[in-house]
Amino acid sequence: MNEHEPLLFEGERIDDLQLMGLRVIQSKDAFRFGMDSVLLADFARVRRGSRVCDLGTGTGILPLLLYGRAGELSCDAVEIQQDAADRAARSMRLNGLEEKIRVFPRDLREIRDFLPYGAYDLVICNPPYSPESASIPSPKPSLRIARQDKDCTLPDVAAAASWLLKSRARLSLMLPAARMASAFETMRRYRLEPKRLRLVHANAERPARLALIEAMLDVNPGLIVEAPLIVKNADGTDTEEIRRIYHLNAEQGV
Amino acid sequence: MNEHEPLLFEGERIDDLQLMGLRVIQSKDAFRFGMDSVLLADFARVRRGSRVCDLGTGTGILPLLLYGRAGELSCDAVEIQQDAADRAARSMRLNGLEEKIRVFPRDLREIRDFLPYGAYDLVICNPPYSPESASIPSPKPSLRIARQDKDCTLPDVAAAASWLLKSRARLSLMLPAARMASAFETMRRYRLEPKRLRLVHANAERPARLALIEAMLDVNPGLIVEAPLIVKNADGTDTEEIRRIYHLNAEQGV
Repeated sequence: MNEHEPLLFEGERIDDLQLMGLRVIQSKDAFRFGMDSVLLADFARVRRGSRVCDLGTGTGILPLLLYGRAGELSCDAVEIQQDAADRAARSMRLNGLEEKIRVFPRDLREIRDFLPYGAYDLVICNPPYSPESASIPSPKPSLRIARQDKDCTLPDVAAAASWLLKSRARLSLMLPAARMASAFETMRRYRLEPKRLRLVHANAERPARLALIEAMLDVNPGLIVEAPLIVKNADGTDTEEIRRIYHLNAEQGV
Repeated sequence: MNEHEPLLFEGERIDDLQLMGLRVIQSKDAFRFGMDSVLLADFARVRRGSRVCDLGTGTGILPLLLYGRAGELSCDAVEIQQDAADRAARSMRLNGLEEKIRVFPRDLREIRDFLPYGAYDLVICNPPYSPESASIPSPKPSLRIARQDKDCTLPDVAAAASWLLKSRARLSLMLPAARMASAFETMRRYRLEPKRLRLVHANAERPARLALIEAMLDVNPGLIVEAPLIVKNADGTDTEEIRRIYHLNAEQGV
């Protein structure tokens, strides 16, 4: 990409993340980032200078939120969809971060061909949710890929993470709570031991909708189930913790 | 056991469960039932007339609580420790339930030798917690066996349950939350699919201490993570739900 190429195309918008002046380009049609990304960025453990890989970066929102939190990091972000990858790359240029956050328009199943072995402190992934059989396919291909497992399954993500991570380094991801048992088994098959779990409930009386999971490569078993993350109070207002997370992270685009 | 044998021996006490007049004999020295049993009895799904097996019944508290809830059931209760099994059998006689709740002083690893295949609606287990390496062995053998995995491991429990259960019937058990990932994998190895999970937190700000897990034999994946079970309010009083559970179940011996 050349610096003289345009940053914004027809049908796109720029959202201000309200975080260190960071902005993200989003398509008005394609999948836009939501609360999930903000919660996952908050859950992940990232330090100043961490080397991060984001699998299926979409708009590039996760690297931007993590960069905002850590103050400084390098991230390789993988996105199989050409138009989304191009848009994410332009978002990095918009923020002057194209050298810190590099976007690879590649398939994560070919990770060994373009990213190094055992080099990352953190792999992060907000993978598509429903298996194809569990929802009605969207007529728009970009929505279909972003929401479904067709081009990215949990075994693919786990295999890529176990290639990328340093020993004892972490994979952080978010999944529907319903898939947790299968996810744990898949991770362990790739030497990724679930170590930290946080369940997201719409309110304190409801079943969990989402599971935030942190696994570590090549460590012993033993899971910490953190206090539940409750989104709404009984009166329908946001809980104190959700307000804290949003204050620390994005306030827009959700 | 003969009806003319004594019901109570030196060093034992009778606790009133405050539930349908049921009572349980407990040793003053050995492991006594605690809040865990009350929570597990509340979590398990039992119906009038269910055929139940309790693995490692200890005092026999779980069959008694389930009987109290269901009004009517039959239960085969297994206990490897002779003195505990004898005491549990006397508790059943004390309640006039020796024909409904039969106690087998046997090793659950030999389950195929004394209980039928594919015959039970519910298998329940409140297994010993720490692996031997994780805690200091108690000098009293009866405490050591009740609290540790020496004579009963999760694979043993899962193997026994997959022998005992009818197709699509349920195993309900309680484990330290830290063991959840290993437990899910073990259960699946024995065709037991985790279907319902409830995490027990001392209060809403604390990590989960215990996990209540329900698995079903030979069904498809898909886990419901229920609302968290919070024991104490922020001010240290029991939550409304804990008071409801204790009102429905035991009010003593905890």
